[in-house]
Amino acid sequence: MVARNPNLARLQGGYLFPEIARRRRAFVEAHPDTQTAQGRVISLGVGNTTEPIPPHIAGGLVQGAEKLKTVEGYTGYADEGFEALRERISQVYYNGRFKADEIFISDGAKCDIGRLQLLFGRDARIVVQDPSYPVYVDGTVLIGAAGGKGSGAQADGYEGIVYLPCTAENGYFPDLNPLPKQSIFYFCSPNNPTGATITRAQLTALVQAVQKTGSLLVYDAAYSSYIRNAELPTTVYEIEGADTCAIEINSFSKSAGFTGVRLGWSVVPHQLRYADGEPVHTDWARITGTVFNGASNIAQWGGLAALDDAGLLELRTLTDFYMENARLIREAVLKLGVSCSGGDNSPYIWARFPGEDSWAVFERILQTCRVVTTPGAGFGPSGQSHIRFSAFGHRSDIEEAAARLAQL
Amino acid sequence: MVARNPNLARLQGGYLFPEIARRRRAFVEAHPDTQTAQGRVISLGVGNTTEPIPPHIAGGLVQGAEKLKTVEGYTGYADEGFEALRERISQVYYNGRFKADEIFISDGAKCDIGRLQLLFGRDARIVVQDPSYPVYVDGTVLIGAAGGKGSGAQADGYEGIVYLPCTAENGYFPDLNPLPKQSIFYFCSPNNPTGATITRAQLTALVQAVQKTGSLLVYDAAYSSYIRNAELPTTVYEIEGADTCAIEINSFSKSAGFTGVRLGWSVVPHQLRYADGEPVHTDWARITGTVFNGASNIAQWGGLAALDDAGLLELRTLTDFYMENARLIREAVLKLGVSCSGGDNSPYIWARFPGEDSWAVFERILQTCRVVTTPGAGFGPSGQSHIRFSAFGHRSDIEEAAARLAQL
Repeated sequence: MVARNPNLARLQGGYLFPEIARRRRAFVEAHPDTQTAQGRVISLGVGNTTEPIPPHIAGGLVQGAEKLKTVEGYTGYADEGFEALRERISQVYYNGRFKADEIFISDGAKCDIGRLQLLFGRDARIVVQDPSYPVYVDGTVLIGAAGGKGSGAQADGYEGIVYLPCTAENGYFPDLNPLPKQSIFYFCSPNNPTGATITRAQLTALVQAVQKTGSLLVYDAAYSSYIRNAELPTTVYEIEGADTCAIEINSFSKSAGFTGVRLGWSVVPHQLRYADGEPVHTDWARITGTVFNGASNIAQWGGLAALDDAGLLELRTLTDFYMENARLIREAVLKLGVSCSGGDNSPYIWARFPGEDSWAVFERILQTCRVVTTPGAGFGPSGQSHIRFSAFGHRSDIEEAAARLAQL
Repeated sequence: MVARNPNLARLQGGYLFPEIARRRRAFVEAHPDTQTAQGRVISLGVGNTTEPIPPHIAGGLVQGAEKLKTVEGYTGYADEGFEALRERISQVYYNGRFKADEIFISDGAKCDIGRLQLLFGRDARIVVQDPSYPVYVDGTVLIGAAGGKGSGAQADGYEGIVYLPCTAENGYFPDLNPLPKQSIFYFCSPNNPTGATITRAQLTALVQAVQKTGSLLVYDAAYSSYIRNAELPTTVYEIEGADTCAIEINSFSKSAGFTGVRLGWSVVPHQLRYADGEPVHTDWARITGTVFNGASNIAQWGGLAALDDAGLLELRTLTDFYMENARLIREAVLKLGVSCSGGDNSPYIWARFPGEDSWAVFERILQTCRVVTTPGAGFGPSGQSHIRFSAFGHRSDIEEAAARLAQL
């Protein structure tokens, strides 16, 4: 038979969330009383939305499905996405500064990041915030742009990937001096997992560092709808010059509860160019046209409903709900004397347990409180000694989890 | 700025269908009377479904969307797909021989082929039927498993990819002797573009050749629901031993009209192993879990409706409709004295124009008949001097196109 692709052999262990699910299952099997309401396990682990899709937006999905029954309403392939949706995204999120063809409709941010790695290829020099969302790193390993398991300071990372530590000491914003020339920098704000949200001054410095080094920024704004402080930027394109050096990724998953519906987008401005002056846009269109067939048309009708006036009000109400969850969790964590970031402009709370192993803390919270969290080490070397709490949950579960945390 | 990924520089021209769309637009702009019913351009080009989704299946989609409004019905991420759908696919298509976890739900065959190339990596030796569906080749170039543009007999292909000619002379079934050891062989039946459908004897020979060479077969069965001859195999797993050497890909796009809805699946049997004895299944789960977030849950509810008793009847009626279209086109082509394959157990008719350039024939048909087709050269070196007619269209368009072909 054929040999295994060495990139897969390099990829460490299972993906973080399947491992958490495995540990949760093992706990439930060992504790029959987890089947009772009082003894139930509550998940603040995976960032998976729990609340129903609000009526107006859900109506858009239903109508989208209804259309497919009729000769007039039926649509087939729509690879790059509905023109109207692309235009509406440009208006709502970017003050109309982009043409429809600079917005590419996708089935979500994670899938787009996978395809972006096809765009950059194996010769790319990849830079990530540390800790970071696992797909930037795992996708890089899959495409062959990383080496083997690192050693020394990179013991929990991969050779060939540059990790920029984001810690309590630097306010979860990295020192940008080590940014190599001509690199691809994945940056996420509001950050998953640290919950840190970039300020305008920091974003200006980031864009300048990217420009100075001739790098390309992949700005993951999947949680931008959780920003409540009006001073904070919600898109990289608020900064002058970003359209010559940045791709932005965003999604309806966390704003409209579309985690299961699958809809997102990427912005690749026409002005973004390679060293030889050729547009990146052409290649991105080629890649999405080659290995992707577009987001579901039903999801796109839902997206259009989410971005009209009634839909935008519903998005706000839905994200407000999760932000109140975040406030409750943050309060419970602080009451324990544990310091944390996030939870104010992001649905994640990043709690510090100095000197402790994060999987050990994960286990302690699971055993003591029957609450599933995400151990920081799963997000990279600097995630060690941290725990991520997700604010996605029913209110009754969040209140119960917050109460149980007092036992810790 | 960063340099361009050399794999993208290697990729030739635009993707076939955008180029066809460009030529169509140019023709329409030059001929204002194409805006009239009589002068309209009719597309038998892209294999894009045109008929509404039948009521029972569409009802499944609508109900799926309705569920998302309710606390009880709401679902978020479902990466590997609904267990019930996986089980039902195993029952309907494979007599229940596969466990649910051997069926991976996807957003369609093309997207799965893109992810499969991440599985195989750049060291894989890729073999394709020639002509073939462009994504096998283009995806191979994108992952870096192909070299530059070929020369000599491979002048229209890429170095590093093995093309096995499928021509009228061999009945569109390739000579398997040149199949290299430890290769990845993409094989499609019913074939896109030739419309040829593999016989049981041929499929047995194919599986044996794959086993003998220690290769891995990717069997693309996206058109299996068009097979009308009960003697013909509808899945590779009808052949003894295929579960140790083959991955199968399939889709709801052409059976249920889900081209815009996005739903498909892959089968990776537990018994499929690498040379070192490790299961391929684990790696495929890792890849889909890393760069994919599952098909839309609404699409999956539709898929469940499509595979219950009422849904299966609707699938049959819908594919019968397109098969009647295929019969009409085939008849019109044969009346011209042009020989062709397909159209009997597949929705494609592959017509021969010996000695002619296929883009020239494409242009002649467009200019003379105002019918858009697909030039064979777009599918690989052996596609030259052929035209693919797609049977996807409204009946009135197909009848009109068939009548106009007589002018050729």
